[in-house]
Amino acid sequence: MRKLAVCGENGKQYPVFLGWDLLERDDWLEEIKFPSSFGVIVTNSRVGSLYEERVSSFFSRQGFTIQVVTIPDGEEYKNLSTVEFIYKQLLNLDLDRKSFLLALGGGVITDITGFVASTFLRGIPYFSIPTTVLAQVDSSIGGKTGVNLPQGKNLVGTFYPPAGVFIDLSFLRTLPPREYKEGLAEVAKTFFLAGGEILSLLEKREQILSREEEILEELIFQSLSLKKKIVEEDEKEKGIRSILNYGHTIGHALEKVEGYGKLRHGEAIALGMMGEAILGEKLSITPSKVVDKQREILANFHLPTQLKFKIEREEFFAALRQDKKKERGKARLVFLKDFGQPIWGVEVEEEKIGEALSYLER
Amino acid sequence: MRKLAVCGENGKQYPVFLGWDLLERDDWLEEIKFPSSFGVIVTNSRVGSLYEERVSSFFSRQGFTIQVVTIPDGEEYKNLSTVEFIYKQLLNLDLDRKSFLLALGGGVITDITGFVASTFLRGIPYFSIPTTVLAQVDSSIGGKTGVNLPQGKNLVGTFYPPAGVFIDLSFLRTLPPREYKEGLAEVAKTFFLAGGEILSLLEKREQILSREEEILEELIFQSLSLKKKIVEEDEKEKGIRSILNYGHTIGHALEKVEGYGKLRHGEAIALGMMGEAILGEKLSITPSKVVDKQREILANFHLPTQLKFKIEREEFFAALRQDKKKERGKARLVFLKDFGQPIWGVEVEEEKIGEALSYLER
Repeated sequence: MRKLAVCGENGKQYPVFLGWDLLERDDWLEEIKFPSSFGVIVTNSRVGSLYEERVSSFFSRQGFTIQVVTIPDGEEYKNLSTVEFIYKQLLNLDLDRKSFLLALGGGVITDITGFVASTFLRGIPYFSIPTTVLAQVDSSIGGKTGVNLPQGKNLVGTFYPPAGVFIDLSFLRTLPPREYKEGLAEVAKTFFLAGGEILSLLEKREQILSREEEILEELIFQSLSLKKKIVEEDEKEKGIRSILNYGHTIGHALEKVEGYGKLRHGEAIALGMMGEAILGEKLSITPSKVVDKQREILANFHLPTQLKFKIEREEFFAALRQDKKKERGKARLVFLKDFGQPIWGVEVEEEKIGEALSYLER
Repeated sequence: MRKLAVCGENGKQYPVFLGWDLLERDDWLEEIKFPSSFGVIVTNSRVGSLYEERVSSFFSRQGFTIQVVTIPDGEEYKNLSTVEFIYKQLLNLDLDRKSFLLALGGGVITDITGFVASTFLRGIPYFSIPTTVLAQVDSSIGGKTGVNLPQGKNLVGTFYPPAGVFIDLSFLRTLPPREYKEGLAEVAKTFFLAGGEILSLLEKREQILSREEEILEELIFQSLSLKKKIVEEDEKEKGIRSILNYGHTIGHALEKVEGYGKLRHGEAIALGMMGEAILGEKLSITPSKVVDKQREILANFHLPTQLKFKIEREEFFAALRQDKKKERGKARLVFLKDFGQPIWGVEVEEEKIGEALSYLER
């Protein structure tokens, strides 16, 4: 078992525990301060049917009273109607400000549960129990919560750190292959941003794809450590944190144009990173060998590096413009000068982004 | 013109400017740091038709680009549907993270605009321009935002301080009498909590009711100063801030039972204070002379001190239980040992609260 302490901008630290079969042991639990003994698991129907019983009985054994709120599975339910549904369930369960939430699931669950926790009764504590690679490395730390609007992803949200993150790697044993692989896109992104020796971990293709315990623990721990470093420096994304958006400007727009669900988030980010790498190359920022290496690594994980379909330009640019990372009328992107050398805030004309898209479509 | 600097728990200060005809002069504006020159007024149809033009042209003269989002007037619109409507309008106006909101209106507007600002694009700045006594003294500082759910008031919200508060007392010249008087209930509450010499200001019944400039400025400035002191000590309401809930436990429940709108917030608080004072008397906490003095002051302002109708007990207790100030299964109230000597967190049985209600009904 490994432990990280992440410091939010509010100055408070929250612990991240990471290990195989974390929910089979209780030696780490005493380090956590729970505000009361009443907690509510928020999960979706699919994850719930697999793990709810396990998590619920783990906490019950420790003397907690645990209830469950279940929402439908899918990004299309990460919306305000679902938020309202959860509020209503929590009121029915008679929650007060000292009760806590347990977000059990992937990124949709951790994002929406964090949002509910930050706004219900003006804020109650929540703990994250991420069950996918994506949620474990991406949305479990950093304090961002989010809900989609019909106009775009995460247009509503808060900065609200969890009170603790419990990463049981065993969830990954049964993760469907496509979900497992999309998570590797965010892992790869973090490593591209970090550069250096750590990058060689991504070469262990076979061990990674066969989900070997040791390498998986290392990949996720290293991703989290890097992300921790960045978000602690800049929790509210005023500067360096925006490097974590590498691949996300084009990626989010693609995800939106395709209608959430068709292209998985990690797949869209793989495509977004390729688009932004090619764009960086055209702008003489990113060397060709970086573009090629990136393509090779992503392809090794069976992640898409080219579009299989034509993208309707007008729709794409509309999505791009509504991405909340842009400032008024400008698109600002992150590029790699090399692995480990990201630059951010680079203003790019739409036209250029359109050209990069054409390369992806070939 | 007077100025206060309020410090939020995040350590950031925000300025509060207070004066007659504040929006006719611009000498104070240079002290404010605006994040960009693009702002959106959020107001309701009634306030908008009266003041939107004035506020909008004030900011335009200073070089700002100002747009307006108008929502319907009334507490019944302080809900999540309206929040969604505002998000949509803001997206249509192409807001980005550096744009700001201007909340122009009473407490409903400042509460809902603050909530939208705290959650739109994970938080954009907002400024408050409160137009009622209630909003000027109660909801303009303290960092609480809120939205009602069908189950109760302010069950959803955030702690999110404004970037600045602009209190133009001239709005009070045209405030309808009932709205003016309900605001005096919150002013009186603050003075009851403060006690001491300041209480004698409330004796100036005639000047207050005729809205004399000098006394009004003093009343509102003193209320704000006291509230500032309390919220700075305890922005997240973990302790002393809860004294501001004096009258609000019974008051909120009454407001809910009556269906928001029938009993105005300040009227419900006046009744709530009377209920809690009588309850305090029965519990040998509050001296009779305090109860009587409080009744006299509230009655002087034509505020209700007795219920004109019978309250359905079951409904009342259901509302009470859902008030977010209670901890699991307990009702905790604020009582006055004397003016200036509030005590908080006093656990009281429902039955006792029911008895106090019966006294109010006589």
